Amino acid sequence: MDSEKRREILDKKDFLKGTFDDLMGHRVVEIVRDHIVTEIDLKPIHLQPFGLVHGGVYAAMAESAISYCAFYSHKGKWAGVNNNTNFIASAKKGKLTLKAKPIKGGKRSQLWEAEIFNGEKFCAKSSVRLTNLDVK
Amino acid sequence: MDSEKRREILDKKDFLKGTFDDLMGHRVVEIVRDHIVTEIDLKPIHLQPFGLVHGGVYAAMAESAISYCAFYSHKGKWAGVNNNTNFIASAKKGKLTLKAKPIKGGKRSQLWEAEIFNGEKFCAKSSVRLTNLDVK
Amino acid sequence: MDSEKRREILDKKDFLKGTFDDLMGHRVVEIVRDHIVTEIDLKPIHLQPFGLVHGGVYAAMAESAISYCAFYSHKGKWAGVNNNTNFIASAKKGKLTLKAKPIKGGKRSQLWEAEIFNGEKFCAKSSVRLTNLDVK
Amino acid sequence: MDSEKRREILDKKDFLKGTFDDLMGHRVVEIVRDHIVTEIDLKPIHLQPFGLVHGGVYAAMAESAISYCAFYSHKGKWAGVNNNTNFIASAKKGKLTLKAKPIKGGKRSQLWEAEIFNGEKFCAKSSVRLTNLDVK
Repeated sequence: MDSEKRREILDKKDFLKGTFDDLMGHRVVEIVRDHIVTEIDLKPIHLQPFGLVHGGVYAAMAESAISYCAFYSHKGKWAGVNNNTNFIASAKKGKLTLKAKPIKGGKRSQLWEAEIFNGEKFCAKSSVRLTNLDVK
Repeated sequence: MDSEKRREILDKKDFLKGTFDDLMGHRVVEIVRDHIVTEIDLKPIHLQPFGLVHGGVYAAMAESAISYCAFYSHKGKWAGVNNNTNFIASAKKGKLTLKAKPIKGGKRSQLWEAEIFNGEKFCAKSSVRLTNLDVK
Repeated sequence: MDSEKRREILDKKDFLKGTFDDLMGHRVVEIVRDHIVTEIDLKPIHLQPFGLVHGGVYAAMAESAISYCAFYSHKGKWAGVNNNTNFIASAKKGKLTLKAKPIKGGKRSQLWEAEIFNGEKFCAKSSVRLTNLDVK
Repeated sequence: MDSEKRREILDKKDFLKGTFDDLMGHRVVEIVRDHIVTEIDLKPIHLQPFGLVHGGVYAAMAESAISYCAFYSHKGKWAGVNNNTNFIASAKKGKLTLKAKPIKGGKRSQLWEAEIFNGEKFCAKSSVRLTNLDVK
């Protein structure tokens, strides 16, 4: 599949329709080679019982954003093998904004990092290791 | 808050109502001191665009289950500071079942592990480090 | 290289001679398929300035033990791509004993875990992800 | 202990004498508040049996450098509770240079990151979580 084709797939409005991202209201706002920005508008559904954004929301944002940008940027179908998310500060409302980029490229395996902000507040940092499912 | 009280809070039917767990259909099926079992019945909303369970679902299950069981088992309000999830095998449908227990106790900080299965298949393993927000 | 040959390489007395393991006094005491036990007799050289065993000693033990046992047990040359070590309790003297086993096998990538004890005391747990350098 | 005192302790020529850092030839070349640079001149003792720098060397460098700089920069005695090291590229000879800084401060717990280079080559990235042993 060439990069034109992969771009088309991601550009389709319904790429994320009905997925876990759709459930979370997670949307891609910018994607170029090896760089992606995504957002979530926080609602009560994103919180845990104590009123803070659930840790799984940060981990899931990173997992998605990084997988999609790897798929967009590099040949193959990429899946996370590890997601290591550090929670830096809590958030309650407003918007979460994620930016991600690779720190190690490669055809078989890649390592990416994502930073997630709530306005000016640095809330979470994830590193996600991806493997290329098309390499046997 | 004594353990009786914490137990009551968790036993309330609406403890998870409207939260991210509720959104995911994540339910506690067994909870005793330092041991919790939780489940999700998989539906299309749990998948990523390639048809596999989204990595964030595993990470979020572990984050919730471990936080709730720490709250249930130990004084204080516990929040995750790190969630490290390894994806072992993929799942598509059926049920995810999680079991978690601490590998290091403590009043200020704890380290727990969770294993998540799809039937007989071992799908993910998470370690979650918690901090006690009530210790200043 | 067949398993007989790999076994011979590891059985040679000088396999670790002059390496970082030799420097640390790290020795293999038992190795079979997918199971390894290693030890270090603690000396002042293993400590950090505050008198406790240096965290790097635990991480290095896990890295070595797991790599060697993967090499012993599975075709290919295996190298760590990630080493995640949690420090559970501190140690000062006596002996460190490590046991490791895989939690996910595979020809391209494996995930192993190691537990390190100082007598009865559980001191550290590592997970190490390996990649097979012979798979292109 | 005030910062003047802590600085004096670290400035003493024999602070690392006889420790694991000394064994590895690990030296501090620059230390200011929340920033440290350290080095190792690579020798055969730093290698594993296949001739590459042992993964434990990177993990240990990060563990030390980050602990010392936290001790230098912040009140209290700081110990690592987690060391997560990603291996990006291998090294064989020359010099390893590490730079570290915190990504989350705090009196009880801190999260730092270190990057390790072999000349121009980015070899490893570690995140180390520290806890303040003086906070009960």
